[in-house]
Amino acid sequence: MTSTTRIWTDIDFDRAGKQVGWVNLPHSVTRSAYGMIAIPMAVVKNGSGPTAFLMAGNHGDEYEGQIALCKLIRELQPERIQGRVIVMPAANLPAAMDGARVSPIDHGNLNRSFPGDPERGVTQEIAHYIDSVVFPMADMFADLHSGGSSLAYVPFGSTNEGPDAALNKRSLDALTAFGCEYSVIWKHADPRYSPGAAIKRGIPQIAGEFGGGGSVNRRMLANVEAGLRRLLKHMGILDMPTAPAPKTRYMNVPGIDYHVHAPDHGLFEPATDLGQWVKAGDLCGHVHFVDDPGRAPVPCHFKRDGMVVCQRHPARVVRGDCVAHQAIDGV
Amino acid sequence: MTSTTRIWTDIDFDRAGKQVGWVNLPHSVTRSAYGMIAIPMAVVKNGSGPTAFLMAGNHGDEYEGQIALCKLIRELQPERIQGRVIVMPAANLPAAMDGARVSPIDHGNLNRSFPGDPERGVTQEIAHYIDSVVFPMADMFADLHSGGSSLAYVPFGSTNEGPDAALNKRSLDALTAFGCEYSVIWKHADPRYSPGAAIKRGIPQIAGEFGGGGSVNRRMLANVEAGLRRLLKHMGILDMPTAPAPKTRYMNVPGIDYHVHAPDHGLFEPATDLGQWVKAGDLCGHVHFVDDPGRAPVPCHFKRDGMVVCQRHPARVVRGDCVAHQAIDGV
Amino acid sequence: MTSTTRIWTDIDFDRAGKQVGWVNLPHSVTRSAYGMIAIPMAVVKNGSGPTAFLMAGNHGDEYEGQIALCKLIRELQPERIQGRVIVMPAANLPAAMDGARVSPIDHGNLNRSFPGDPERGVTQEIAHYIDSVVFPMADMFADLHSGGSSLAYVPFGSTNEGPDAALNKRSLDALTAFGCEYSVIWKHADPRYSPGAAIKRGIPQIAGEFGGGGSVNRRMLANVEAGLRRLLKHMGILDMPTAPAPKTRYMNVPGIDYHVHAPDHGLFEPATDLGQWVKAGDLCGHVHFVDDPGRAPVPCHFKRDGMVVCQRHPARVVRGDCVAHQAIDGV
Amino acid sequence: MTSTTRIWTDIDFDRAGKQVGWVNLPHSVTRSAYGMIAIPMAVVKNGSGPTAFLMAGNHGDEYEGQIALCKLIRELQPERIQGRVIVMPAANLPAAMDGARVSPIDHGNLNRSFPGDPERGVTQEIAHYIDSVVFPMADMFADLHSGGSSLAYVPFGSTNEGPDAALNKRSLDALTAFGCEYSVIWKHADPRYSPGAAIKRGIPQIAGEFGGGGSVNRRMLANVEAGLRRLLKHMGILDMPTAPAPKTRYMNVPGIDYHVHAPDHGLFEPATDLGQWVKAGDLCGHVHFVDDPGRAPVPCHFKRDGMVVCQRHPARVVRGDCVAHQAIDGV
Amino acid sequence: MTSTTRIWTDIDFDRAGKQVGWVNLPHSVTRSAYGMIAIPMAVVKNGSGPTAFLMAGNHGDEYEGQIALCKLIRELQPERIQGRVIVMPAANLPAAMDGARVSPIDHGNLNRSFPGDPERGVTQEIAHYIDSVVFPMADMFADLHSGGSSLAYVPFGSTNEGPDAALNKRSLDALTAFGCEYSVIWKHADPRYSPGAAIKRGIPQIAGEFGGGGSVNRRMLANVEAGLRRLLKHMGILDMPTAPAPKTRYMNVPGIDYHVHAPDHGLFEPATDLGQWVKAGDLCGHVHFVDDPGRAPVPCHFKRDGMVVCQRHPARVVRGDCVAHQAIDGV
Amino acid sequence: MTSTTRIWTDIDFDRAGKQVGWVNLPHSVTRSAYGMIAIPMAVVKNGSGPTAFLMAGNHGDEYEGQIALCKLIRELQPERIQGRVIVMPAANLPAAMDGARVSPIDHGNLNRSFPGDPERGVTQEIAHYIDSVVFPMADMFADLHSGGSSLAYVPFGSTNEGPDAALNKRSLDALTAFGCEYSVIWKHADPRYSPGAAIKRGIPQIAGEFGGGGSVNRRMLANVEAGLRRLLKHMGILDMPTAPAPKTRYMNVPGIDYHVHAPDHGLFEPATDLGQWVKAGDLCGHVHFVDDPGRAPVPCHFKRDGMVVCQRHPARVVRGDCVAHQAIDGV
Repeated sequence: MTSTTRIWTDIDFDRAGKQVGWVNLPHSVTRSAYGMIAIPMAVVKNGSGPTAFLMAGNHGDEYEGQIALCKLIRELQPERIQGRVIVMPAANLPAAMDGARVSPIDHGNLNRSFPGDPERGVTQEIAHYIDSVVFPMADMFADLHSGGSSLAYVPFGSTNEGPDAALNKRSLDALTAFGCEYSVIWKHADPRYSPGAAIKRGIPQIAGEFGGGGSVNRRMLANVEAGLRRLLKHMGILDMPTAPAPKTRYMNVPGIDYHVHAPDHGLFEPATDLGQWVKAGDLCGHVHFVDDPGRAPVPCHFKRDGMVVCQRHPARVVRGDCVAHQAIDGV
Repeated sequence: MTSTTRIWTDIDFDRAGKQVGWVNLPHSVTRSAYGMIAIPMAVVKNGSGPTAFLMAGNHGDEYEGQIALCKLIRELQPERIQGRVIVMPAANLPAAMDGARVSPIDHGNLNRSFPGDPERGVTQEIAHYIDSVVFPMADMFADLHSGGSSLAYVPFGSTNEGPDAALNKRSLDALTAFGCEYSVIWKHADPRYSPGAAIKRGIPQIAGEFGGGGSVNRRMLANVEAGLRRLLKHMGILDMPTAPAPKTRYMNVPGIDYHVHAPDHGLFEPATDLGQWVKAGDLCGHVHFVDDPGRAPVPCHFKRDGMVVCQRHPARVVRGDCVAHQAIDGV
Repeated sequence: MTSTTRIWTDIDFDRAGKQVGWVNLPHSVTRSAYGMIAIPMAVVKNGSGPTAFLMAGNHGDEYEGQIALCKLIRELQPERIQGRVIVMPAANLPAAMDGARVSPIDHGNLNRSFPGDPERGVTQEIAHYIDSVVFPMADMFADLHSGGSSLAYVPFGSTNEGPDAALNKRSLDALTAFGCEYSVIWKHADPRYSPGAAIKRGIPQIAGEFGGGGSVNRRMLANVEAGLRRLLKHMGILDMPTAPAPKTRYMNVPGIDYHVHAPDHGLFEPATDLGQWVKAGDLCGHVHFVDDPGRAPVPCHFKRDGMVVCQRHPARVVRGDCVAHQAIDGV
Repeated sequence: MTSTTRIWTDIDFDRAGKQVGWVNLPHSVTRSAYGMIAIPMAVVKNGSGPTAFLMAGNHGDEYEGQIALCKLIRELQPERIQGRVIVMPAANLPAAMDGARVSPIDHGNLNRSFPGDPERGVTQEIAHYIDSVVFPMADMFADLHSGGSSLAYVPFGSTNEGPDAALNKRSLDALTAFGCEYSVIWKHADPRYSPGAAIKRGIPQIAGEFGGGGSVNRRMLANVEAGLRRLLKHMGILDMPTAPAPKTRYMNVPGIDYHVHAPDHGLFEPATDLGQWVKAGDLCGHVHFVDDPGRAPVPCHFKRDGMVVCQRHPARVVRGDCVAHQAIDGV
Repeated sequence: MTSTTRIWTDIDFDRAGKQVGWVNLPHSVTRSAYGMIAIPMAVVKNGSGPTAFLMAGNHGDEYEGQIALCKLIRELQPERIQGRVIVMPAANLPAAMDGARVSPIDHGNLNRSFPGDPERGVTQEIAHYIDSVVFPMADMFADLHSGGSSLAYVPFGSTNEGPDAALNKRSLDALTAFGCEYSVIWKHADPRYSPGAAIKRGIPQIAGEFGGGGSVNRRMLANVEAGLRRLLKHMGILDMPTAPAPKTRYMNVPGIDYHVHAPDHGLFEPATDLGQWVKAGDLCGHVHFVDDPGRAPVPCHFKRDGMVVCQRHPARVVRGDCVAHQAIDGV
Repeated sequence: MTSTTRIWTDIDFDRAGKQVGWVNLPHSVTRSAYGMIAIPMAVVKNGSGPTAFLMAGNHGDEYEGQIALCKLIRELQPERIQGRVIVMPAANLPAAMDGARVSPIDHGNLNRSFPGDPERGVTQEIAHYIDSVVFPMADMFADLHSGGSSLAYVPFGSTNEGPDAALNKRSLDALTAFGCEYSVIWKHADPRYSPGAAIKRGIPQIAGEFGGGGSVNRRMLANVEAGLRRLLKHMGILDMPTAPAPKTRYMNVPGIDYHVHAPDHGLFEPATDLGQWVKAGDLCGHVHFVDDPGRAPVPCHFKRDGMVVCQRHPARVVRGDCVAHQAIDGV
């Protein structure tokens, strides 16, 4: 089906200058029969350069990107740019206001909802608007994540590989320009995720995991802010001095074997630290049973060699929770 | 009123050896007319020495103590001790199983519920049992906290001062024996908190904030584990080699002026790091409005000189949330 | 897909006389494995005239129509009519029993669910039954709305225009016969709404907004009761004296520019009254911040000239809520 | 017990000028271990006159008073007054932010919670603060109500009679000065309500019901705004021209016999209008059964002669809901 | 404190004839500011005999008594009795309408709430009304229970022993007259339960457990209906032929050792049947782990000899749930 | 669409021996960004015989099958079988852990979700995995049900008839081998149910209703355990002595006319017992109104002759609940 979005906005994407406003998603509910969900957007435009589409709040509980983009919106001066910057600092606005990964309205995970469908609920409507209205205007897409409430990360920029090598090259160049200590190349591109959707539209894309635990990491935030400016400079949109990018280490996550999952319900005591290199068979941690302290804790182990780049943040686990995952070196 | 507890247990507090079981709180609800809440307890006894009462899970989302006590219960060998160790690793069991500060049953904050009352709900019943049954057996009380879901701490041991200088001295000695990098002396002892209740019973008490954010910090957990052993050794209960205590820095929190509260609802970007020394008037952080990025962020400032020992963990704030508090040097 | 409904009924649509019963939607849940949602329906039939299908409770919190149809069901005497009257006084029964616009089961808004689908949840099943089973029997469709919990209206009858001028004429004649002080012609017919679905089936349709605020307006209720009798007389079904219809004023709502939305979260103080004629740029109202009374209230303004025919009822608003909309004169 | 409040504020009640801030209620919960509920308050002071304490948001879903006080706070100029005005525009702040009569935290109805108790939950703590801290400073108390979500009123000012005739006289004079079309004298003063608590403190008090249905009535709001200025002038605090008070009609509600309650669960169709004079035995309305339209509606009747001054706003009723109450003439 | 109830009724307890109505508990909430909880009551009176107070719905999910009393209310003919019968078929009305043991309003268990307090919530208010208003009128009290949602029983009548032997004798005589296959003598009388409260008022009391599982057992219902008539005949209130009482077996439950509790969370497979005689050490059942079927099920055992008179009904258990309890022979 | 499942497992379906583990459904939510739902599965394989696929927990609140399969998993010895047994003891794991018929995640009823769709939510994903991955490996499918929380059954085995007579014959033979006192032949096979889905895959299937009320019936559990062994023996997988099957009585349920539904909301008193033969027009039961005991109870009646094989378990009913259904003799 080729449905058209019902989302509308007073923003004029072709107008020069800075516009800060909303895209409006009609949402008719008991408390507001003719209500709209007002999703924030800013458009800053000048001259005739390329369009960068910068997004955060894909997951509502990932904050460095949300704050970095709020600050960028206020700081960008139209007269200092060439081209256009489209910013959605809280793409899944209901999730962002709820401080949650998923929407409180339909439990939708925006990053599993692309390319979206305007007839399948609010989160799918947002995905569909981004995919069908915003992506066609974009020459570059950056989606800023962190570990959210449940995960903590060794911070890294990332990009997803698609079938088009030239496009992959442009994404990798953008990632290198953005500049992080670690850069992860995801070897696949699920089309339900925003990078996969961007690839289908032929748009170079970068993402990244900056911090986690549902908190704001000051150092990571500073990295994101610097990286965004380097990216805009790389695109020729912004012409101002930027801090040099740090040397990056390229890594990748070969498969599900590089994840460890909780073997039972209880309190997880990790046996390793983020950034630590571990070997297959090494202890990953124990699940303790505080309601039944006489019961022996249940251990779990790594299945592969690799660096621990991600660990579960909350102590309470349910069987099947990811408690750690690893990455290895190489593009 | 002098009500008696309805909580009962099969544990015999006078029996030598190790008993790991439960104290049972009758709780008659739709899903279980004659049900009980089974709160874990262990008693390890040998010979005729003093009694240490070790507790965690006063707040259900503070984990280092819960895990340290589960491990201690399994590791303590009756034949190696002189005296008695009573352990409640998850005192507010319903909160602990819910991964929450307060009880999901009656929203009770156990550490605001002392001395408790068996007629005022489950959390008050637990407080009353601890106060009226366990405290009278104890020669020392240790209550292991962390920042929980909402706060992150510079880790410290602590004790509360009461009106009895000799008792204060015994508490401070125990705190020094426990051994942390920082030791905070709280200058008051609210009787609704467990330390205040212990003071009213004439029992030396220590506590502490080890980690936070609802996670498990490996280094802090190791500190707690070592400290518990040093404490038991200090009491003459345990006779085994222990790691030496680090040199401690004594600090205190003079009053509410050393706290900073969120000035509005939104995303809080901190301007300082934990452990940083700041001056009165220094910027503490900003509240950003991601749903309305055109609105200027609202700043807040420190009112006093001091070290930042506590910061809010989650980025989302509501007006009135504590975003930071400071301590200053001195006992 | 051409799925068949699973809704069944003991009502015989071809039987003469009055039947008051239910159409049954199988709904298998924990509390009732083989349960059904029993949606009330009445069929009154005599002789060989046309069929009027009268519906209310499309939105569960809109009451004048629900009460008017309950009274009509009890008052209609089969021997006094020629033809058939099918009445569904609470079409979205779960919403009606919940006093809510949308279904408590699947949050479905029945008036966004046509033509429905028996595989997509309870609300879609109801829409599909109405569309595929009831509409094919109907020569006229009246759907009685009000402003519901969130809106208050200048009361009006309405019809939607479709692509078939002859059908539009029949609808407009029915609307004129129904007889309200105001008659609104909606210039579009979204097929997800009941009128749009009726148009696709070739059935003349009228609707209207009678009252609001989740209350029952006695004068509006009387208007609806009289209008229903005039409509049945107009169709030749009922032959009895009816009160003459008042002279109507034809109006329309040209577009979204005739709506005003709340610019922030807070308490909305309206600056105008229902029925008032306002000009573009006129003040519509202010959002006040009772939790922060030092903050200046945020105003909003009308974008167009027109009569205020709808205002938000509850004082509390969220950004994006419709606080008013206007209509202008003309068919 | 003579507990002291734990609520604190940076506001200095003795300082001249205008202060707009908060009184802070410590509230330690999972999402904010050291959080506070920040209840808005303004103090405007000049010279040496009396103190008026003006309050709204006692019930969170009653809005005319909340908005009137927000506007008053911004408009009051210290240099224009003699004395002090203490304003709490949203006394039960959690209820006000929830748009509900009662607190979402402990379901507390502030106006059933006086004189309050700092150990019995948030709503009791607020009542206790008002009673023990604010009342002792006040020479006059005005508590601005409306019908809230569930009731609609013929608007009236009111006062409660206590045992002290001189105090009653001062309250009645204040009520007359405030100036409404109707003035109701409540013949009792339940000490759990704010007026009863004020009487126990020896403070003249007025209240009133201005509008209802959970909405904002513009005419009632204007009346409240004018009345507040007349009251401050009457007290000698404000010296500025005010609109003259309308002639009032004094009424009272002799007892529970002047109430009518819903006889069953269903949709209530009223048989009378607000302001109508009815006789004992007159029909008050019917309960309709939209889920079972074949069942006969159940009527209910007035038990006494009187004017209908209050009617239920929402159509859905449960047996026992007040559907109407009457008043009769006389002080 | 000697507070008076705020519950009121139109029922005249001294009037001859049959009155079926409600006692009204004022309950002011968002959906009904002046609402009441209408608790059903019937009073049937004739001549000058004693007063029987018959109650069910103490726990809302125990049904045989509720239905038996509804039928009795309709069947009792005033002219056939001498004395007075006061019937409350759904004492905890909110729980009864919710099909739950405890009130959905305040989670109150009415049978843990005596003697009640009008200032401590709805359930305490009901207990207080029964204790302070109804009990003083009663010469006999019967409270009809069953196992509710969570328990299944070998049906029995019961009475509680208090300190007054003469009163105990009158209760036991009433129990014998009521007539069940089994009669249990509870050796204690917790004053929070209705029988304990009746004893404190000097009123003979009987109770019983008739069925369970949240269902209606036809045979038990018939027993209750016959027993009620025998009880009224025993009191001299009713003079009509009744079925003879079956021979009863007197039993008692010596203590908590006669209960078995679930040793873990999971699915409980019982090893015995209701009514079976078991010995200390016999297997009571196993907890299975369907989410982890490789884990060995955990057994539990009886601690005493006795007859299994009660078993848990739902398969899902939490540690601490009562899975069975026993009784032994003897008064 | 031909989507592939995202569910994965470490279990190797082709490996000899016993594997007890999980199939993992990725489920990304706020509390676990990279979490999985770990659905238990066991595979026992030896030699080269056929594959039996045994399932329970299709509805989470039906327990005899869940326990029987947990026990079978532990008892099956690979060396004693020829072929393969695939066991899913809790197919809708979230529902099973919740003790509910439907999933707490998406309210999905697994037995209305076949053939499933990996893009339509968790319950559809499980159905799709069973249909697309497990069914293609199976030579026989047994799905073990009971009445669940809301129904009680005369226990019976069952099979569904499809269009292929040879396949029906194989199913009926399996049912006879399984061996119950009653065997019900369902004359239709809705493809949304597991048996209908199996028929579409050409797999013989049996099911059955063993017990109910959300409890565990010991006799029924024993029947299921014996039947499973007889079934495996019938397939040639298991070669060990089994108890002989009882003689069965073949019955069927001709249509919806053999169901009786609650005519109103209230307490249902049944007029018959399970297993009783009743005639058209016989009383089925009454709905009582305990909140309004003066209102006459509403009766309902059987429409057909037949044996009562199913009755509602909970006393509380809503209009439309199935209160009983009948079966008649014959295949």
